[in-house]
Amino acid sequence: MHDISQYQNFFISYLKDQTISKDPKNLYEPIEYILGLGGKRMRPVLTLMAAEVFDTDYKTALPAAMAVEVFHNFSLVHDDIMDAAPLRRGQVTVHENWNINTAILSGDAMLILAYQYFEQYEPLIFRDLARLFSKTALEVCEGQQWDVDFEERNDVTISQYLKMIEYKTAVLVAAAMKMGAIVAKTTEKEADLIYDFGLNLGLAFQLQDDFLDAFGDPATFGKQVGGDIMINKKTYLYLKALESSTPEKIVLLKGLFSLQLEDNIEKIETVKAIFNESGASKATQDAIEMYTFRAFETLEKMDINSEKKNILRTFGENLMQRKV
Amino acid sequence: MHDISQYQNFFISYLKDQTISKDPKNLYEPIEYILGLGGKRMRPVLTLMAAEVFDTDYKTALPAAMAVEVFHNFSLVHDDIMDAAPLRRGQVTVHENWNINTAILSGDAMLILAYQYFEQYEPLIFRDLARLFSKTALEVCEGQQWDVDFEERNDVTISQYLKMIEYKTAVLVAAAMKMGAIVAKTTEKEADLIYDFGLNLGLAFQLQDDFLDAFGDPATFGKQVGGDIMINKKTYLYLKALESSTPEKIVLLKGLFSLQLEDNIEKIETVKAIFNESGASKATQDAIEMYTFRAFETLEKMDINSEKKNILRTFGENLMQRKV
Repeated sequence: MHDISQYQNFFISYLKDQTISKDPKNLYEPIEYILGLGGKRMRPVLTLMAAEVFDTDYKTALPAAMAVEVFHNFSLVHDDIMDAAPLRRGQVTVHENWNINTAILSGDAMLILAYQYFEQYEPLIFRDLARLFSKTALEVCEGQQWDVDFEERNDVTISQYLKMIEYKTAVLVAAAMKMGAIVAKTTEKEADLIYDFGLNLGLAFQLQDDFLDAFGDPATFGKQVGGDIMINKKTYLYLKALESSTPEKIVLLKGLFSLQLEDNIEKIETVKAIFNESGASKATQDAIEMYTFRAFETLEKMDINSEKKNILRTFGENLMQRKV
Repeated sequence: MHDISQYQNFFISYLKDQTISKDPKNLYEPIEYILGLGGKRMRPVLTLMAAEVFDTDYKTALPAAMAVEVFHNFSLVHDDIMDAAPLRRGQVTVHENWNINTAILSGDAMLILAYQYFEQYEPLIFRDLARLFSKTALEVCEGQQWDVDFEERNDVTISQYLKMIEYKTAVLVAAAMKMGAIVAKTTEKEADLIYDFGLNLGLAFQLQDDFLDAFGDPATFGKQVGGDIMINKKTYLYLKALESSTPEKIVLLKGLFSLQLEDNIEKIETVKAIFNESGASKATQDAIEMYTFRAFETLEKMDINSEKKNILRTFGENLMQRKV
């Protein structure tokens, strides 16, 4: 097996070898653009790693890894339209660089292109990959819809929020790993275990993203710290704070989360103080730890040698320390 | 075999038996809505017919027919956003009834749902159907992009226009038929022949749609007669007229096609007169006849009995007489 940065390099060089750009260029150039914006390539790396965990050369898993990455970028293109986001990875978004119609249509083409990468496998593997992919892709759409719905709702429960992040984020991490297992033709049991490992790791990752959005170091956290608070996003921190704050603090928190301010410095500080006092910060860190623990527990059940368990564990640890 | 209205009924009752609506309802209700708007169900009917042409019960082809119909409606939902169309089949469009974000996301889910219908087939059939579907879906996206690009261009050639309508419209008609052949496990040769039959019929159909948009009977043509002229759409009629008009008439035609008018009655009459005088109307009718003839010629090459050839021929004739 290799280390994470090697898998990243393997994937990036495979990605660069793909000839995506052809006519009509207004359809394919935005696809090359978004795929070229970079990022950690975490999901395709997980597919390659999973294949090697089950004793199969990462090269066999490259088309499946590519499908995962193309799908992930498809979802970014369409989500960015819905969120009217101006920037993605520090560059202008597709709908800003071209227009909304182009972003819709190029996104559609990406979803189809993702499926086409599975055509490089024999029929049984193709069927299993495409079936897992469709199930996952539909869940990602459902998660996105819940996320949109929750903006308008004031009665979101913690369990509904967890379901939303599971669908919107965690299932793709899980599926990325299971695809590596499918390509490696491992047993269904092992494939399901690595899916669970990915699912729990994905949940821990997203909860940590919520936490770092409020309490992260501006120097190392990729996004604007306090961003979720600014846009009144009902994250795990917020929902936990509502659950465990004093009545006065609940009124204050709800009041602050009904405002759209120009200057958010004071709002962010007040909200963070409530998150801390109420125990919401601690509860979020506990939840992150629990999902990480569950992921590592799943690892122990797997029928792979300890060297491979260590590699997956190290990946998980690095991910949670944001070193990946 | 059955007649066309029977296949329509078989398909509609299968469609009604599908439980599409589930949570989140903002994702699935728009899908039920668009699929319930009706239409002739021409494409799924062709899938069912093709299966029976190759001696396979239409019931076997129902999931593939459904995939085709779901994909077709996906393309309508996203195209209607791009065209800012207020109405579809006489009812408000999805993005008007809900909003653009809902129309994007529900459309995405439809594209995935279409693939899921293939999961009801064994791996080899699944692979063949999904592969044809992906190729076709990508061509439809390319056709839509060419259509959008052509709005801004003044140098579109007849052959580029024909490629655009082939991709945007004809390939899906062709693929719908070939899917019936795949489900029926016929030979590749027969499957390719029925694809060609559908492709030529689809081209004839679209050219006739262009023709009827200008010269159809307002009482029977589903859309507003003169609609393409109003929006300055560069159809086959227009491109042929540019090719064969006098220099003065070309100047007049280009002038008229640079206007956005409130009252289009005079413009429509003048443009139609140019289409007639220039021979563009005749050339369009000749092209329709040629593609229809090519479709029927392909039919003759097929290894099916004459009863079945007659059924396909009758379908083609009814389609061209707009009786389907």
